[in-house]
Amino acid sequence: MTFDTTQTIVAIATPPGMGAIAVLRLSGERSLEITSSVFRPAKKGKSLKEQKAYTIHYGSIIDGDREVDQVLVSLFRAPHSYTGEDVVEISCHGSTVIQQQLLELLVRHGARLAQPGEFTLRAFMNGKIDLSQAEAIADLIASTSETARRVALNQMRGGISNKLAVLRNELLRFTALVELELDFSEEDVEFANRGELEALINSIISEIDKLSASFSQGNAIKMGIPVTIAGKPNVGKSTLLNRLLNEEKAIVSEIAGTTRDAIEDTIHLGGINFRFIDTAGLRQTTDTIESIGIERAFVKIEKARIVLYLADAQANLDEIISEVEDFATKLSPSQNLIVLVNKEDKSTQAHVEEVLSELTGKGFSALALSAKAGHNIEQLQQLLIAMGKADMPENEDVVVTSIRHYNALQSARASLVQVLNGLQANLSGDLLAIDIHQAIDYLGEITGEISNDEVLGFIFSKFCIGK
Amino acid sequence: MTFDTTQTIVAIATPPGMGAIAVLRLSGERSLEITSSVFRPAKKGKSLKEQKAYTIHYGSIIDGDREVDQVLVSLFRAPHSYTGEDVVEISCHGSTVIQQQLLELLVRHGARLAQPGEFTLRAFMNGKIDLSQAEAIADLIASTSETARRVALNQMRGGISNKLAVLRNELLRFTALVELELDFSEEDVEFANRGELEALINSIISEIDKLSASFSQGNAIKMGIPVTIAGKPNVGKSTLLNRLLNEEKAIVSEIAGTTRDAIEDTIHLGGINFRFIDTAGLRQTTDTIESIGIERAFVKIEKARIVLYLADAQANLDEIISEVEDFATKLSPSQNLIVLVNKEDKSTQAHVEEVLSELTGKGFSALALSAKAGHNIEQLQQLLIAMGKADMPENEDVVVTSIRHYNALQSARASLVQVLNGLQANLSGDLLAIDIHQAIDYLGEITGEISNDEVLGFIFSKFCIGK
Repeated sequence: MTFDTTQTIVAIATPPGMGAIAVLRLSGERSLEITSSVFRPAKKGKSLKEQKAYTIHYGSIIDGDREVDQVLVSLFRAPHSYTGEDVVEISCHGSTVIQQQLLELLVRHGARLAQPGEFTLRAFMNGKIDLSQAEAIADLIASTSETARRVALNQMRGGISNKLAVLRNELLRFTALVELELDFSEEDVEFANRGELEALINSIISEIDKLSASFSQGNAIKMGIPVTIAGKPNVGKSTLLNRLLNEEKAIVSEIAGTTRDAIEDTIHLGGINFRFIDTAGLRQTTDTIESIGIERAFVKIEKARIVLYLADAQANLDEIISEVEDFATKLSPSQNLIVLVNKEDKSTQAHVEEVLSELTGKGFSALALSAKAGHNIEQLQQLLIAMGKADMPENEDVVVTSIRHYNALQSARASLVQVLNGLQANLSGDLLAIDIHQAIDYLGEITGEISNDEVLGFIFSKFCIGK
Repeated sequence: MTFDTTQTIVAIATPPGMGAIAVLRLSGERSLEITSSVFRPAKKGKSLKEQKAYTIHYGSIIDGDREVDQVLVSLFRAPHSYTGEDVVEISCHGSTVIQQQLLELLVRHGARLAQPGEFTLRAFMNGKIDLSQAEAIADLIASTSETARRVALNQMRGGISNKLAVLRNELLRFTALVELELDFSEEDVEFANRGELEALINSIISEIDKLSASFSQGNAIKMGIPVTIAGKPNVGKSTLLNRLLNEEKAIVSEIAGTTRDAIEDTIHLGGINFRFIDTAGLRQTTDTIESIGIERAFVKIEKARIVLYLADAQANLDEIISEVEDFATKLSPSQNLIVLVNKEDKSTQAHVEEVLSELTGKGFSALALSAKAGHNIEQLQQLLIAMGKADMPENEDVVVTSIRHYNALQSARASLVQVLNGLQANLSGDLLAIDIHQAIDYLGEITGEISNDEVLGFIFSKFCIGK
């Protein structure tokens, strides 16, 4: 990653491949000059450089006396552009040959190929957006569900930045007072009321805890809500998984371009992504080293926000109830359990109804189905959607979706706990100030007030080219 | 295909999948109204509908009180737009979810999903372009080589249309004179000089023949220059094919998005596509029903513009020379032959040199190589490029690339031959006029002066969505 902003950069901004149109984007001081050198407007008159911002111009891209394509050129001028620099967008015919030729031509005339995220990096470096907003733009582009889109857009609009700015400002105000005491250290005055400071720190810690708690939600939104299918061997776990994923494959292919790895075990239902955590592979070990097998399965079950427990409809009532009750004790209160009475078609209707009524009587969500025959799969999907929706944030809630933000929040919290300890130990203002500053810096890492090239390089390398 | 132009249509115009940005395009009377109903400009002031053409506006797409995305809206006003209608382009974040949601939202507000090529169909129906130009736009977008791009762009600028317009006008002028004679039929006058008419028809036929002859070139440009690898069994034909195609696979993957089927046996070298016609599959039949096998191979060889004939360097000199000379007699003069002395590493250098010198002495292009070891493959590629380039049209040459155009030219030619026959039989003007009109109509089919919905439906159905 280079952080040089003196050069003019260029990239294809539209998805790779052939389409009706493609858009190339330039940003930097020489954007207009470079474009002018290869653009011949259809309407004679002013040169591109004399045209106003936010205007569109039709003409030809020429390479010497060779016409490469007929295009539309859109102009944006610093600082009122995405990057805060002069920006030109060239909309060409979407042939792969034309896209490549235009890119090469613009590079030959002085532009440099942009690195992933470099346009957004410039927007950040030019103060158009903060770091958490930049990350939100990458999340927004990568979003494959309605909830992920909504949360990313909220963060892009400054959701988390505004929350953090309030916390930082309060801390800054207090350090100013604490530091003022240093100037008067011989007089032993206290400008910053210690009781007020303690109350403030506590309220900020509780804010941080609220934000941190949203991370498991945020992670579920970004990666899909983790769902585990549990149950004894041969109850039909794999059949159900295949059934659910197969239903999905058609939908996934409609929205092409998402990463293969990420969707492999993910299904998209009602605007929410569900990520299925496979426990099927554990079955062979359960026979031989059963205790290890169960342990491993429970590590995966622990990560789930929704657990589908499969029971066999052919088992007798007491057996089913006791295995379900036993299993339920191993879940945490925040986990949602759905009991699925599978192979309903191999049992009698009376028995299945009895099992269901007993289970619901004991407060379990229960559903009878046949994974193999495909009975009641849609009802299961509706149940998943309902649970997923209940698990999603409200419209304007700020949700932490990045492990980087979560870690910074935890570090800030640790520093603030140090401040509380210091207050109780009656530490002097200068010592308190060190920890408060530390906390402010950690919070500043999230929005990028405090940053280093390594962190920036890591963040922007995950962007797509052209953004 | 519907030819209704009263509705406002919408489509995603950028390639499918995720990218930094995506562009949606609307065209039709209600484009601005529909966009206004879901767009909230960042800067308060004039509504979209009051803004000037060729301007860009930043703001949010809203669905009720839900913000879907922050976008740029570009305005074009009838008739100065691609379609000749009011056109709006919305540039959004390139998430697949956002693209789908915007599309659905615009449809909910009154736009209809555009059919493939429907924007270009409207451009044609509104007289912005003729039919051959519309077809050229599809070719331009689909172009995967520099030559295909150049020829399509030339046609889009009206290359073939202008040529045909001249021919049609001359024919029209003459029919007018011929038809004038009908009004004076009782006086037996000849306004149209029969000698001049015959000369004109002959010159038009020769123009048509020139255009028709370019079709095999045009087809080669569009589909790739057909290359056949011939030779006795076990000389290494398949090895060479794999070697050439493997070299390519890396290059193909760089320009993603081209149709799989089309590139399966195509390699891209020096701005030219070569399409390899496989004759390897014929080998098993040659043993049993050898005559049929050879016949089939030669059907494929006939289609080739370049034939690679493989000989085995281990064979003796006379054997190689006689098989090559024998083979060469079966080619047409327009076909290029390259003799490849394969397995050079299994023979002696002296022998290989003797074979090459004998072959070149007899006027053959010859090259020694080892397909298996990969020797001299690059030299072969350079030879293919040189032959391919010599085979390509000059910069401004008009080339027929469409079988539809070729067929129309042939039909026009047949009618003109009828006219010549009529002139020799001293037919009267009214009878001549029928055939001349027929020829004019056939020429008019190419540019779409004469067209029917079935033909249009067929042409535009091959377009991509959003164009």
